[in-house]
Amino acid sequence: MEAAMGTIALGAGLAVSIGGVGVGIGMGIAGGRAFEAIARQPEVGGDVRTLLFITLAFLETVIIYGLLIAFMLVGNIG
Amino acid sequence: MEAAMGTIALGAGLAVSIGGVGVGIGMGIAGGRAFEAIARQPEVGGDVRTLLFITLAFLETVIIYGLLIAFMLVGNIG
Amino acid sequence: MEAAMGTIALGAGLAVSIGGVGVGIGMGIAGGRAFEAIARQPEVGGDVRTLLFITLAFLETVIIYGLLIAFMLVGNIG
Amino acid sequence: MEAAMGTIALGAGLAVSIGGVGVGIGMGIAGGRAFEAIARQPEVGGDVRTLLFITLAFLETVIIYGLLIAFMLVGNIG
Amino acid sequence: MEAAMGTIALGAGLAVSIGGVGVGIGMGIAGGRAFEAIARQPEVGGDVRTLLFITLAFLETVIIYGLLIAFMLVGNIG
Amino acid sequence: MEAAMGTIALGAGLAVSIGGVGVGIGMGIAGGRAFEAIARQPEVGGDVRTLLFITLAFLETVIIYGLLIAFMLVGNIG
Amino acid sequence: MEAAMGTIALGAGLAVSIGGVGVGIGMGIAGGRAFEAIARQPEVGGDVRTLLFITLAFLETVIIYGLLIAFMLVGNIG
Amino acid sequence: MEAAMGTIALGAGLAVSIGGVGVGIGMGIAGGRAFEAIARQPEVGGDVRTLLFITLAFLETVIIYGLLIAFMLVGNIG
Amino acid sequence: MEAAMGTIALGAGLAVSIGGVGVGIGMGIAGGRAFEAIARQPEVGGDVRTLLFITLAFLETVIIYGLLIAFMLVGNIG
Amino acid sequence: MEAAMGTIALGAGLAVSIGGVGVGIGMGIAGGRAFEAIARQPEVGGDVRTLLFITLAFLETVIIYGLLIAFMLVGNIG
Amino acid sequence: MEAAMGTIALGAGLAVSIGGVGVGIGMGIAGGRAFEAIARQPEVGGDVRTLLFITLAFLETVIIYGLLIAFMLVGNIG
Amino acid sequence: MEAAMGTIALGAGLAVSIGGVGVGIGMGIAGGRAFEAIARQPEVGGDVRTLLFITLAFLETVIIYGLLIAFMLVGNIG
Amino acid sequence: MEAAMGTIALGAGLAVSIGGVGVGIGMGIAGGRAFEAIARQPEVGGDVRTLLFITLAFLETVIIYGLLIAFMLVGNIG
Amino acid sequence: MEAAMGTIALGAGLAVSIGGVGVGIGMGIAGGRAFEAIARQPEVGGDVRTLLFITLAFLETVIIYGLLIAFMLVGNIG
Repeated sequence: MEAAMGTIALGAGLAVSIGGVGVGIGMGIAGGRAFEAIARQPEVGGDVRTLLFITLAFLETVIIYGLLIAFMLVGNIG
Repeated sequence: MEAAMGTIALGAGLAVSIGGVGVGIGMGIAGGRAFEAIARQPEVGGDVRTLLFITLAFLETVIIYGLLIAFMLVGNIG
Repeated sequence: MEAAMGTIALGAGLAVSIGGVGVGIGMGIAGGRAFEAIARQPEVGGDVRTLLFITLAFLETVIIYGLLIAFMLVGNIG
Repeated sequence: MEAAMGTIALGAGLAVSIGGVGVGIGMGIAGGRAFEAIARQPEVGGDVRTLLFITLAFLETVIIYGLLIAFMLVGNIG
Repeated sequence: MEAAMGTIALGAGLAVSIGGVGVGIGMGIAGGRAFEAIARQPEVGGDVRTLLFITLAFLETVIIYGLLIAFMLVGNIG
Repeated sequence: MEAAMGTIALGAGLAVSIGGVGVGIGMGIAGGRAFEAIARQPEVGGDVRTLLFITLAFLETVIIYGLLIAFMLVGNIG
Repeated sequence: MEAAMGTIALGAGLAVSIGGVGVGIGMGIAGGRAFEAIARQPEVGGDVRTLLFITLAFLETVIIYGLLIAFMLVGNIG
Repeated sequence: MEAAMGTIALGAGLAVSIGGVGVGIGMGIAGGRAFEAIARQPEVGGDVRTLLFITLAFLETVIIYGLLIAFMLVGNIG
Repeated sequence: MEAAMGTIALGAGLAVSIGGVGVGIGMGIAGGRAFEAIARQPEVGGDVRTLLFITLAFLETVIIYGLLIAFMLVGNIG
Repeated sequence: MEAAMGTIALGAGLAVSIGGVGVGIGMGIAGGRAFEAIARQPEVGGDVRTLLFITLAFLETVIIYGLLIAFMLVGNIG
Repeated sequence: MEAAMGTIALGAGLAVSIGGVGVGIGMGIAGGRAFEAIARQPEVGGDVRTLLFITLAFLETVIIYGLLIAFMLVGNIG
Repeated sequence: MEAAMGTIALGAGLAVSIGGVGVGIGMGIAGGRAFEAIARQPEVGGDVRTLLFITLAFLETVIIYGLLIAFMLVGNIG
Repeated sequence: MEAAMGTIALGAGLAVSIGGVGVGIGMGIAGGRAFEAIARQPEVGGDVRTLLFITLAFLETVIIYGLLIAFMLVGNIG
Repeated sequence: MEAAMGTIALGAGLAVSIGGVGVGIGMGIAGGRAFEAIARQPEVGGDVRTLLFITLAFLETVIIYGLLIAFMLVGNIG
């Protein structure tokens, strides 16, 4: 068990961070397009805001799963 | 079994995170385009919202499969 | 058999996740373009919805094959 | 034979997933452009639908070949 | 011969999948542009369809060559 | 435990930094689009500002999770 | 000779597949632009078709060379 | 402890630099879009300037976290 | 000499394929632009055709050099 | 300590250079957009110049942090 | 000398092929733009043709240098 | 000390070159946009020239830091 | 000295080829834009031609430096 | 010292070539935009030419620094 700890830590670090590349870009695109939509058509602001929150929540799940696996892996160290 | 644990953890970490790059970008594109569509044609808001949820659900499955394999791999550690 | 388990797990993790990069981006593009098409021409909504589901289903198969191989590989661990 | 199993599994995992990056993006582009074409010119819907299915089928073959090799490789494990 | 089997399998897996990245994207671009061309100028539908099939066939050869080498390599395993 | 410390540190370093690639680009896109939206439609400034803060907060969580795992890993060194 | 077989197979696999990334994208671009050209100016259809075949043939040579080297390498295995 | 120092240093170096790729591009996009917004609508200059500072501050946190982990790792060397 | 054969084969495989990525994309761009040029200005068809052949020939040399080195390397195997 | 010096130097070199990829592109985008803004609306030149300096200063901090860690690592060599 | 032959061959293979990625894309862009220029302004055809040949010749030198080094390296094998 | 020299040299080489990728692209973008701005609005030439020099100077610092670390590392060789 | 020859050759091969990726793309962009400029404004042909040669010469220096280092490294083999 | 020579050569090769990727693309962008600017506004030709030379000179410094480090490293071989 001792010998494998370093690689387990590496796995935990990658689990929580690689997905963040896509999630970060995705949140930026979603948010940015929402601002544009509101600026172009202010009266749909409520609809867009609701959908933006739902999209961000879905995006959050992607990184949360990575965090979950990272926690489970970290629990095996030490 | 002991010796392979580190690499199994690495596999689990990669399983849950690499797919997240594409899923994150995909959710951002889908969400962002949905806001644009609603802003341009507010009366199709209901249709677009339904399709957005379906698209997000399909995207969610991609990352869930990765999570599933990661769970199965983590179950082999410790 | 014992010694190879780590690498088998790595193969399973990669099998289910690398394809997800393309599938995630592809689902996002397909979904996003579908919203645009509906917003521009609401009366083709039914046609586009049907084709979107078929495209998403084809995309789903790509990741399912990866999941299938990952299952077969995981079955060889432990 | 025992010693090589891990690498064979890695090969199977990569065979079924790397191609999925391109196939996923390609299906998304093809599908998305088809929705646009139908929205711009609804009366060519039938033609476009047929061609979309053929394009998706060709794309499917790319990933199927990867799956085929992955099956053949998995058959050598265990 | 035994010792090299893992690497042969890796070569087979990469042979059939790396090319798929380009072939997948290429098929998607070719197909998508064909839909656009038909939507813009429906009367050239026949010409475009024929050329699309020829382009897809050329693209298919690229992945078939990879499959061929993969088969030859797999034949050396086991 | 001693031997694995270097790899644990590598995992901590990657955990906090890889996700930053996506988060940085995402924050830049979201912020930049917000400025554009305000310049195009100054009266939606309040709405956009609120949504921008929410988007930035979501993006911040992505990197915070990475920081969290990095802290947990660093705690195992020394 | 025995020991090097795995690496020879890897070389064969890469020889036939890496070039396919560019050839696949290139065939897709060439084909797609040809459809566009025919749709915009149907009377140059014959010229474009001839040039498309020549371009595809040149692209085919790129992958054929890779296949040729792969065959020569495979001939050294087993 | 001695043996791992090199890898710890590598982790510290990567922690502070990989995130900088995204943060640098993000700051450039945010700043550049702010200049555009001010040039297009000079009277929203105050609003945009405030939001730009907030966005830059959020971006700064991303790299500061990396610096923090790098400091903690460097503290374990020597 | 025996021990190095695998790496020589790897060099041969990479020599003939990496350049193909650029050559493939380049041929596709050159060809595609030629079709566009002919469609926009049919009377320069002859000029463009001649220049396209020259450009394709120059592109072909790039991959031929790779093939040449690959042949010379393969000649050292076996 | 002696044995790890090479890797420490590698860490120092990467710390100061990887972030430079993003910072360099970011400075170029920010500067380039500032020139555009001034050319389009010369009377906001003062505002844009001030904001450009602030953005460049923020970007400079990103690379300075990398330099700082690199100095601390170099101090451990020799 | 014997032991290093494989790596020398790898160096030769990379020398002649990596540069080809850029040269191939560059030749494609240069050629493609030349066709466009001739189609837009047929009377500058002579000028553009001369400059295209000069640009292609400069591009050819890039790959020739790689070929030259590859020849010199191959001369050290066998 | 002797054993680590190669890796120190590798660190020096990477320190001075990786950042150059971003700095080179950034200088090209900044310069190119400056030419455009001057061509569009010749009377702001003086302002743009001053800002271009400042931007180029900031970009130069990025690569100078890399050069500095490279010098310090090279000083440890030999 | 004998043992390091392979790696020296690898360094020579990379020195002459990696830079070629950027130089090739850069020459293509510079040349392509020059053709466009001449087509749009034929009377500046002389100016553009002179500047194109200067730009190509600067680009050539980049690859020549790589060739120079490659020669110096090759001189140490054999 | 003998043992490290290969890696020193690798460092020299990378020092002079990696930066060339960015410098090459940057020179191409700067030059190309300069041609455009001159074609659009021929009377600013002198200003643009001067600035282009300054930008190219700054870009040249980036690759010269890499060459400098490469020389210093090569001086340690043999």
